[in-house]
Amino acid sequence: MVPLQSPLLRACSRRPVVLRRTRRRQAKRPCQRNVCCQQQQAAVSPAPAKTDALLDSLKWDQNGLITAIVQHVDTGEVLMQAFANRLAVQQTLLSRRATFYSRSRREQWCKGDTSGNHINVLGMYLDCDKDALIYLGDPVGPSCHTGAHTCWFTELQQEPHGLRLEGEHTSGRHVPRTTLYALEATIAERRAAMSQQQPGEKPSWTAKLLSKPELLCSKIREEAGELCQTLEENEGSDRAASEMADLLYHSMVLLNLQEVPMEKVLSKLRQRFATSGVEEKESRKAQ
Amino acid sequence: MVPLQSPLLRACSRRPVVLRRTRRRQAKRPCQRNVCCQQQQAAVSPAPAKTDALLDSLKWDQNGLITAIVQHVDTGEVLMQAFANRLAVQQTLLSRRATFYSRSRREQWCKGDTSGNHINVLGMYLDCDKDALIYLGDPVGPSCHTGAHTCWFTELQQEPHGLRLEGEHTSGRHVPRTTLYALEATIAERRAAMSQQQPGEKPSWTAKLLSKPELLCSKIREEAGELCQTLEENEGSDRAASEMADLLYHSMVLLNLQEVPMEKVLSKLRQRFATSGVEEKESRKAQ
Repeated sequence: MVPLQSPLLRACSRRPVVLRRTRRRQAKRPCQRNVCCQQQQAAVSPAPAKTDALLDSLKWDQNGLITAIVQHVDTGEVLMQAFANRLAVQQTLLSRRATFYSRSRREQWCKGDTSGNHINVLGMYLDCDKDALIYLGDPVGPSCHTGAHTCWFTELQQEPHGLRLEGEHTSGRHVPRTTLYALEATIAERRAAMSQQQPGEKPSWTAKLLSKPELLCSKIREEAGELCQTLEENEGSDRAASEMADLLYHSMVLLNLQEVPMEKVLSKLRQRFATSGVEEKESRKAQ
Repeated sequence: MVPLQSPLLRACSRRPVVLRRTRRRQAKRPCQRNVCCQQQQAAVSPAPAKTDALLDSLKWDQNGLITAIVQHVDTGEVLMQAFANRLAVQQTLLSRRATFYSRSRREQWCKGDTSGNHINVLGMYLDCDKDALIYLGDPVGPSCHTGAHTCWFTELQQEPHGLRLEGEHTSGRHVPRTTLYALEATIAERRAAMSQQQPGEKPSWTAKLLSKPELLCSKIREEAGELCQTLEENEGSDRAASEMADLLYHSMVLLNLQEVPMEKVLSKLRQRFATSGVEEKESRKAQ
């Protein structure tokens, strides 16, 4: 365990407010949406004057709403976008569960109250114009109402004959993938294509590594050595970046062979450092 | 070079449409905002019927606008959020430069036409409700009009005495950091704190690694070996994820010592694979 601690990493060890649902309230309201949030409203103490002034300074639209974008804390994926009113912002700050205001239903809405797919919010951020928030979150289950991981599963493609929309909520093939995850997906494609390889066809380097674990492991050890060498022999930052890229790629081929998504690695990093951060704090208190 | 290829990785090798500005047009219009986009308007050919129908299917608001969120293709950072009208969406598709509609100025706006800080768009994605787009982009310079890297540089913190807003556009200390970048920032903080360490104070593990390059390099080689061992000795996916987390952390300490941001590593990965993808395609054509 490594004694690291940052505000964000510390935050994930905080438990959200535990909320109880009463049978009576559920019976009265067949649609259970908002039950959690409605109960929380009672728990929202009147905002002190300073809080009021700060909330006043946000740029609410004519309906008293602000844009709220949810981003995955580990992968950086943009998961969903909705709107929040003043109370939804306060609820999210207090409960650490992503809460919004539904324009169509005209009511507050704590994501996951019906589906169970809450989003635990580890950080909240405001943009320069004060009219858009980011909820940095750790989602429980899919974030999209369709059951997809993210709401963005359709790609716009400009082709010679015009615009084309590609993607379905079930496939996840046309989500906006950032470099690390585009690479992960490409490695997975290479692996899937191996079964369809024609006799005599030259395999890709990735396919070769996937089919020869001893070659893959020797490459990972070699790349780690070359990364160290950039420091030991003062080869410069550009060379260090290149060697790190090589090490990352080869390690990700190994992760693919063991069915380990990068998301799991990042989640482990966050949890580990958060725990050791807390332990470190405790040990300091005990001194 | 590794022969990988994915739609996103391929995309970054495409050059945006080259646009010429005429002196005459600039002289007529002291504010050069939109010059680029206005010139492009002429280049937007009438949308074929299929494109028209697809654009009709988007959920434009009462002002004919849709939310547009810009995400960094390498780091996953959410950089800015604005609105786009129908023409701005078409312009972005054709020019591959992030284009919006300014509600305050009531005109189309190609980001970077005045500042030079364009955002090259590598992919465009639509959400489940068809009312919000993601522009997956490679920004030239800062994305925020304040000069900050991202528009989100203010953190909302709930404290016992009420809400607190922290952060300034110049500091970058309160941006929404996902796990990889939170770890990178924490390593940097550990390094900065080393100069203030009191005599007799026990250094953190990170500080120890930073001060002893030979220990750091031996740990990186050791962790790479342990990652390989998870495959060689079939130790299971959970162990593989843990060892990858260790390798990533130790490698990032080395990167910090050499002033290499993870963003540079990811950018290298994207550029390298894009180039080899194109080369691979070319070589296939030549066969």
